[in-house]
Amino acid sequence: MPSAPSAHRLGDIAAHVRGELLGDPGLLVHGLNGLEEAAPGEVSFYGNPRYRKQFEATRASAVLVGMDAQAQARNGLALVRVHNPHLAYAKLLSLFHPATRPEPGIHASAHVHPEATVHPEASVRAGAVVEKGAHVGARTVLHPGAYVGEDARVGDDCVLYPHATVRERCVVGSRVILHASSVVGADGFGFAFDAEGESGPEHFKIPQVGIVRIEDDVEVGACTCIDRATVGETVVGRGTKLDNLVQIAHNVRVGPLSLICAQAGVSGSAEVGTGVVLAGQVGVVGHIRVGDLAKVGAQSGVAHDVPDGQVVSGSPAIPHRDWLRASAASGQLADLLKEVRALRRRVEMLEKEKGG
Amino acid sequence: MPSAPSAHRLGDIAAHVRGELLGDPGLLVHGLNGLEEAAPGEVSFYGNPRYRKQFEATRASAVLVGMDAQAQARNGLALVRVHNPHLAYAKLLSLFHPATRPEPGIHASAHVHPEATVHPEASVRAGAVVEKGAHVGARTVLHPGAYVGEDARVGDDCVLYPHATVRERCVVGSRVILHASSVVGADGFGFAFDAEGESGPEHFKIPQVGIVRIEDDVEVGACTCIDRATVGETVVGRGTKLDNLVQIAHNVRVGPLSLICAQAGVSGSAEVGTGVVLAGQVGVVGHIRVGDLAKVGAQSGVAHDVPDGQVVSGSPAIPHRDWLRASAASGQLADLLKEVRALRRRVEMLEKEKGG
Amino acid sequence: MPSAPSAHRLGDIAAHVRGELLGDPGLLVHGLNGLEEAAPGEVSFYGNPRYRKQFEATRASAVLVGMDAQAQARNGLALVRVHNPHLAYAKLLSLFHPATRPEPGIHASAHVHPEATVHPEASVRAGAVVEKGAHVGARTVLHPGAYVGEDARVGDDCVLYPHATVRERCVVGSRVILHASSVVGADGFGFAFDAEGESGPEHFKIPQVGIVRIEDDVEVGACTCIDRATVGETVVGRGTKLDNLVQIAHNVRVGPLSLICAQAGVSGSAEVGTGVVLAGQVGVVGHIRVGDLAKVGAQSGVAHDVPDGQVVSGSPAIPHRDWLRASAASGQLADLLKEVRALRRRVEMLEKEKGG
Repeated sequence: MPSAPSAHRLGDIAAHVRGELLGDPGLLVHGLNGLEEAAPGEVSFYGNPRYRKQFEATRASAVLVGMDAQAQARNGLALVRVHNPHLAYAKLLSLFHPATRPEPGIHASAHVHPEATVHPEASVRAGAVVEKGAHVGARTVLHPGAYVGEDARVGDDCVLYPHATVRERCVVGSRVILHASSVVGADGFGFAFDAEGESGPEHFKIPQVGIVRIEDDVEVGACTCIDRATVGETVVGRGTKLDNLVQIAHNVRVGPLSLICAQAGVSGSAEVGTGVVLAGQVGVVGHIRVGDLAKVGAQSGVAHDVPDGQVVSGSPAIPHRDWLRASAASGQLADLLKEVRALRRRVEMLEKEKGG
Repeated sequence: MPSAPSAHRLGDIAAHVRGELLGDPGLLVHGLNGLEEAAPGEVSFYGNPRYRKQFEATRASAVLVGMDAQAQARNGLALVRVHNPHLAYAKLLSLFHPATRPEPGIHASAHVHPEATVHPEASVRAGAVVEKGAHVGARTVLHPGAYVGEDARVGDDCVLYPHATVRERCVVGSRVILHASSVVGADGFGFAFDAEGESGPEHFKIPQVGIVRIEDDVEVGACTCIDRATVGETVVGRGTKLDNLVQIAHNVRVGPLSLICAQAGVSGSAEVGTGVVLAGQVGVVGHIRVGDLAKVGAQSGVAHDVPDGQVVSGSPAIPHRDWLRASAASGQLADLLKEVRALRRRVEMLEKEKGG
Repeated sequence: MPSAPSAHRLGDIAAHVRGELLGDPGLLVHGLNGLEEAAPGEVSFYGNPRYRKQFEATRASAVLVGMDAQAQARNGLALVRVHNPHLAYAKLLSLFHPATRPEPGIHASAHVHPEATVHPEASVRAGAVVEKGAHVGARTVLHPGAYVGEDARVGDDCVLYPHATVRERCVVGSRVILHASSVVGADGFGFAFDAEGESGPEHFKIPQVGIVRIEDDVEVGACTCIDRATVGETVVGRGTKLDNLVQIAHNVRVGPLSLICAQAGVSGSAEVGTGVVLAGQVGVVGHIRVGDLAKVGAQSGVAHDVPDGQVVSGSPAIPHRDWLRASAASGQLADLLKEVRALRRRVEMLEKEKGG
């Protein structure tokens, strides 16, 4: 968890983000903030010309700006020129708020099975549970109520927030964050209808005997659910980030470096490539592929394969350009109806006259 | 939690809702129910003329009716005339089922840090956790597994149901209800792409160092997630109610007295005004404003500012009236296609004849 | 939870699924897998001619095939002919991975109220909570952090995964599975606006004094929420399966044998019949009925009653056939606009000439 902010010299700050400083390197600054909210002694960033007015009025002592920004240092305002002001701002937030970790060790009220392996530098906090045969790596923190099931493995430097669940045999890499009440490894939603079940028709439960494998540097949002595979693995690739309330169904494979925004859902056995962005509330049907670097607009429903690099929108999703055209057209639909009715009357008139 | 129902005299009931009683004030009634389900000895309400038939057939002993209702007391059926039968019914449910609270005190299996402050009248139940520096107010109940993080503050008369999480430094007002597995203060979904990360391209995590502030009288549904701000505050205003599985992203500001229905999501830095209604599964994109008293229809996708008081629907959302017109028109679209093809042929014919 | 796989003779396997074996009944097989993934010694299934190529190339030792499949046993490949290969495969998964249960008994760190009734064959694991007056049936497992509220009843052979919550007075049948962080019995989302509240306008909370009743053989997905009724019962019928992140509002009645996929939501007092399928992210408005055996396509918004057996799609949902027609037409809309403009010009021309 990030700590309270510390103070830094502007020269050190510029060095930290590999930026060029226009201003006093000895000036002490003690925090970061938006252009409008920043007070003297704070650093802000200006990455979009849309915010020119706010930049000009800011009370910040220093502002991160792009290499090509039309911006000048002025009395009381230092500039730090960087290639990517947004990224530099993120790095400074980390500098000002270095992450803290609870003391290592196992809390008296935690439950760690004698046949589990917990690294001595890991922290297992009040009420957390580590089951038989499970493994918890170095410097990993299990917050109160976090759960690691039988024979599951959680790597090094992970954080499991309160009530995060990793079910039996699932594998979680290193530097993974599981937010509160996220669920890794619940049973996939798989049933075979049996018209002649023992006590009448039933949805016979297909045992879900596979696992979930989460690679390194993944972040899983609060109340996000990643189901275990029927047989084999559900996979979330290295460096991929899932927002809150996301559903990843059984046997899905998400590639590395993808971003899946809140309340999106990916159905069984679908494949999501590398560097994909699924915006909020998107749905992806089962057994299809969303290609590398594809982008899917908010609330879209993806019903067919999406080629690499394509941007799609709508439900069902179509290429974004077509969707924009269709959306614009649909706004004119009611007028179009009137127009066609009028045309019909005019044509009838012409036909009559011709016949007459 | 509401208790088992108690019995009340009709006269007291009418007084409680400031209604006018047509019937025997001494009659004892012992519960409430729908018009169809109610048995003798129960009270029901009739707020919508659509249910006239059910009103006429009801076996209830008394019915709450509006001031202008076409309704007459009859043998065995008392009436209580009130301004708002629905509200009066709600108040009677509270009268018949007064809320009960567990005994104050800290359960032996709860974990309260020695440097936390728990009001002596608060109840901290089995397995609940209050971290260092946290504050829990008078008469607040932390149900089993509820979690209050470091330096977080929860006011008076709150209820945190099982596995509700309030993360570090977040601030929760008084009379707030957090339902089971709700998550207040998980990290916002913020990353800056770094093509030259230490071990290759990565989504660099932007530390989320802000907090969530929940004002008084707010209700947060089960598995609803409210993310902490990157810097500053994510705010949910006084008296606003969030249903289950709602997503409120970082730096969102929701005004007072709004209603956000199940599975709706509000993206980062968006503003939702006062008295707004977002129906189920609505999505609101980031950095826009939904004006005071605006209403957004179910499953709509709000992509632009919504003026105060406007009713919008659709994805992307447009004024509800236009959406109704467009929906109606789109049902006629296939016919329209045929019609236009027919017109084209007729025009071609006319053109040929003219030329001929 | 399913155990590690055991080994079985092919003859026993054929008998278990009541299939006809073409191959060596004495051959030992030790697991199941997909046609492509299977290694010698494993069993697979071939239920769809689309996978003919994979069937022909499979390294599996035996394959389950339909009665009418164009498939021949060959050297090293036995066949088991069955009526429903998918169901047979599911039954074999159960055979190979028989479910295991933790030891019966109450863990030292669990909290069971002295006035609760826990069957001696039930397992109450670390940190699970059973409140006063609650009942837990035979062979039911409460995993760590599971919660059973006051006077709630959970039947026999149930599994409550970590942090599953059953609130006060709710009733759960037998052989029910509640996945991690599912919430049964949170308050319904019910408020009556009171313009003259004690401290200004407010949404007066309508006490939710009803319960949830879950019948036998139901499965409830991770982070799925089923709200208690205002008065009376919210019901989920026998053998119905709910996926993850589903919302079932107060007073909803879902019939038996229905399937509700991830992130779908059903609003208050709606009725979902028997054998209904709601695909992912579907929304159903309140107070309507989705008829028996109806199917609703992904992301659809159901705003009106759906007759028995009807298949609907779209938002708002219309019969699937009409929706397909409308979807196809809407793709042609932009072209239609052009066409109509061109027609108008041609008609104008004709009119002029006629007049001229």
